Amino acid sequence: MRPVTIHDPTLRDGQHAVKHQLSASALRGYAEAADAAGVPVVEVGHGNGLGASSLQVGRAAVSDDVMLSTVREALRHSRMAVFMLPGWGTSDDLRKALAHGADVVRIGVHCTETSLAERHLEFLAGEGVEAHCVLMMSHMASPAELAEHAAAVVGYGARGVGIMDSAGHFLPRDVGERIGAIAAAVDVPVIFHGHNNLGMAVANSVAAAEAGASIIDGCARGFGAGAGNTQLEVLVPVLERTGFATGIDLYALLDAAEFAERELMPAPPTTGSLSIVSGLAGVFSGFRHPVLEASARAGVDPRDVFFELGRRQAIAGQEDLIVDVVADLREAAR
Amino acid sequence: MRPVTIHDPTLRDGQHAVKHQLSASALRGYAEAADAAGVPVVEVGHGNGLGASSLQVGRAAVSDDVMLSTVREALRHSRMAVFMLPGWGTSDDLRKALAHGADVVRIGVHCTETSLAERHLEFLAGEGVEAHCVLMMSHMASPAELAEHAAAVVGYGARGVGIMDSAGHFLPRDVGERIGAIAAAVDVPVIFHGHNNLGMAVANSVAAAEAGASIIDGCARGFGAGAGNTQLEVLVPVLERTGFATGIDLYALLDAAEFAERELMPAPPTTGSLSIVSGLAGVFSGFRHPVLEASARAGVDPRDVFFELGRRQAIAGQEDLIVDVVADLREAAR
Repeated sequence: MRPVTIHDPTLRDGQHAVKHQLSASALRGYAEAADAAGVPVVEVGHGNGLGASSLQVGRAAVSDDVMLSTVREALRHSRMAVFMLPGWGTSDDLRKALAHGADVVRIGVHCTETSLAERHLEFLAGEGVEAHCVLMMSHMASPAELAEHAAAVVGYGARGVGIMDSAGHFLPRDVGERIGAIAAAVDVPVIFHGHNNLGMAVANSVAAAEAGASIIDGCARGFGAGAGNTQLEVLVPVLERTGFATGIDLYALLDAAEFAERELMPAPPTTGSLSIVSGLAGVFSGFRHPVLEASARAGVDPRDVFFELGRRQAIAGQEDLIVDVVADLREAAR
Repeated sequence: MRPVTIHDPTLRDGQHAVKHQLSASALRGYAEAADAAGVPVVEVGHGNGLGASSLQVGRAAVSDDVMLSTVREALRHSRMAVFMLPGWGTSDDLRKALAHGADVVRIGVHCTETSLAERHLEFLAGEGVEAHCVLMMSHMASPAELAEHAAAVVGYGARGVGIMDSAGHFLPRDVGERIGAIAAAVDVPVIFHGHNNLGMAVANSVAAAEAGASIIDGCARGFGAGAGNTQLEVLVPVLERTGFATGIDLYALLDAAEFAERELMPAPPTTGSLSIVSGLAGVFSGFRHPVLEASARAGVDPRDVFFELGRRQAIAGQEDLIVDVVADLREAAR
């Protein structure tokens, strides 16, 4: 049995599904349950990471300080992780997280914009903390490009590097090719983080492990926006059955997931039409609300908007493109 | 692009999730929507098939006659299918279904009990209707055994044969081996019907198609008991992207799934602890309620009961085993 390290972003990525409104007592309860199950790493934060709580993407119910001190206190064995998107978070946020005892710090960047992570990874390497770099929207780059960027961030000091299937677009073969290329290019653990838009999150995660990934992300009940993330308590026994050792206690993990279903979310994620379409189109599901609004105003099919955004390779932050696409589709329909 | 035929049991297998209470207008509405999308085969009936409406497994809201005439009327292009478990249904039920214009008739048997299908398949072959035989709980037999039984039912007259992953136990490799063995043994279309207990329904269905299956089952939103079936409107575009042609219109299919979510089910299926455990244990999820009841009475962990039922190779109809297992676990705990 080859070991894999499970990284659990339930209390960070799941926040997207509840507009960042998890309470301190919910954070504490889930962190304690994950800790009791032997989940090695528990990530916490605003959905968009350190420093992101704002009017623009939504204010969290609880400050970064309270989130970090609450989860730190709840974890007896598990390591605590944080996530940061450069631009939303700053070096000051990283220092604060380290002062709160974060053991693992992840820097997320668009898959071809790794230079944005350089300064932060160098700082974190100097602090001796385990720094990861995750390449987001990774379906938009080839295996060779991803391998090149992965090698670059390891040069900056990353002690783990990998890919997020941010749009839920991959099928297992795609993941195997990309993880294989990255694993061949770096000598640090390789990370995979899946989304379930095409029902493939667990299968993709197994493909990642088989191709050489040794850090795999999963959220309780798949807690996350839209179709959700890889369902943690399904992933773990499936990895074990496939020949990977996670060190996690199944029953305690199932209990943690039941706590999460009861206390963190209104209901577990399911896969609706726009989740499927955004996955097929390769578009970040965070575009959902602005696409729906602009489509309704203009009387165009939001599914067409998603597919056209995919053709135009829209990425997060390019919400202006939605307006252009909607206008073009309306024009074309005349 | 190799063609695959999508077989849609939403209005039959989905009934399990609503205690067989779909109304005639719900049946009509979904059948019309699936027909409009170009779904080639629409299956309808009580969850346990023709003739099964009863106090023991639950009375359907609508009689077989009304179900069949309603769906027959709604379908303009799609073929209509029915399902029968010998013992629940009889030759008379088959005759009635043919009189109602059923185009495809499926006989379901436990994977090693194919002789139960012989008489019915011979009758159906004589009538010239497309008869399928599906081997249920197929994880309980080896690829070679399944191939042998598949060849036997083709000898009885089946014009399609395949496997149901009734417990949701398979991983893609398991499916590929079994479908490959069956496809090598018969010269009729091979069928795969998945369940999503381990998050693998779509991945398993793709593995089936790649190994030679040409009839694949899927239900709108995965409508079905417990973790549900393969989600049809995810399956179709994923098959298309993988190189299989379904002939189905994606947008109309997404519309049909939205109708299903709104009109057929209280909520789409999600994967809870006991679905995961029954999938891992390889136990039919229909055992859920009796296991929960007996476990609560005896103060034992229902998850232990599922795993022990799996070790004892319990199959549907052997609910008495639950009592034995619970008693043994209670004894062992003393």
